[in-house]
Amino acid sequence: MIFETIITTQAGDGSIHIAPMGIREDNGLIVLAPFRPSSTLDNVLGNGYAAVNYCDDVRIFAGCLTGRRDWPTVPADKVPCARLKSALAHCELKLERIEEDELRPRLFCRVLHRVSHSPFRGFNRAQAAVLEAAILVSRLHLLPWEKIETEVKYLAIAIDKTAGPREREAWGWLMEKIEAHRAALKQGDAA
Amino acid sequence: MIFETIITTQAGDGSIHIAPMGIREDNGLIVLAPFRPSSTLDNVLGNGYAAVNYCDDVRIFAGCLTGRRDWPTVPADKVPCARLKSALAHCELKLERIEEDELRPRLFCRVLHRVSHSPFRGFNRAQAAVLEAAILVSRLHLLPWEKIETEVKYLAIAIDKTAGPREREAWGWLMEKIEAHRAALKQGDAA
Repeated sequence: MIFETIITTQAGDGSIHIAPMGIREDNGLIVLAPFRPSSTLDNVLGNGYAAVNYCDDVRIFAGCLTGRRDWPTVPADKVPCARLKSALAHCELKLERIEEDELRPRLFCRVLHRVSHSPFRGFNRAQAAVLEAAILVSRLHLLPWEKIETEVKYLAIAIDKTAGPREREAWGWLMEKIEAHRAALKQGDAA
Repeated sequence: MIFETIITTQAGDGSIHIAPMGIREDNGLIVLAPFRPSSTLDNVLGNGYAAVNYCDDVRIFAGCLTGRRDWPTVPADKVPCARLKSALAHCELKLERIEEDELRPRLFCRVLHRVSHSPFRGFNRAQAAVLEAAILVSRLHLLPWEKIETEVKYLAIAIDKTAGPREREAWGWLMEKIEAHRAALKQGDAA
């Protein structure tokens, strides 16, 4: 089972890196699988720590895919790292072992500390639609335009019916990216 | 903004009714809009109370649409009602005023009590897909078969990639219902 979360890690110079990641559990450990190369991988290999942020602010997911990586963090409680201020819950991890892979090494991490900050507010269909659109945006170069267009049209229904301001803002950022992709495709056709 | 939750209400004989419902907030009140006629409407009008259950067990959503309404509850803390045992959080409501409507009256409710039981575990794409399939199942009679088929095929991707056992079970119940609908359509064609 895979949960979509935001991983925060700390570089050697103290700067914090924020990245969306699908995580899973394996025998009580949390498994991160960052791509190679990536700041998340460098940072976890560097100091051995990370935080998982369980967030319902989908602007952070959409933001990380559209050049908006600056989200408020606070220092973690127990490890040299930070967590997102808006996380509904977070846990702090220590790297335990690595399963090597050329593309996506697997980092098996122990949970040292887990805190709940705010209650779950229920499912929101627009939040799920923003996440699906974010995944779509991360794969634009792999997909035919017709598929992108059909999927956006389908996801837009949940946005229209159930979104709040945060979901609309996140959706807007993703749609700009898709519009830019379409414009580039058109220019390619014209050339 | 609309959140998909499970509403629990209590009938005059003490029995508990469980029903999925999209809720919204309006000036600090929670607005329920149950269909007329429905047990949820009868019960809230009957004793003036309800509980909102913020659940991530999507079997309850899919179950209520496929004849599986018997989920463990515990008594509410402050009002004559019950809440779902598996709720990550819940709140207890008192009916404050009614906006009449022939199809869906709006029940404006005050939150008397709010409790968090378990932390949010992050977004799971399969949970969102089960919810979308549940909405699809509730509208089968309104939709052409091609649309149903296309949507199921799309949603199945997230199930395959990210579901846990609860999501697979819920998905199975919904797929049975869709299969039965298809069989009925075929029989209709043959007649």
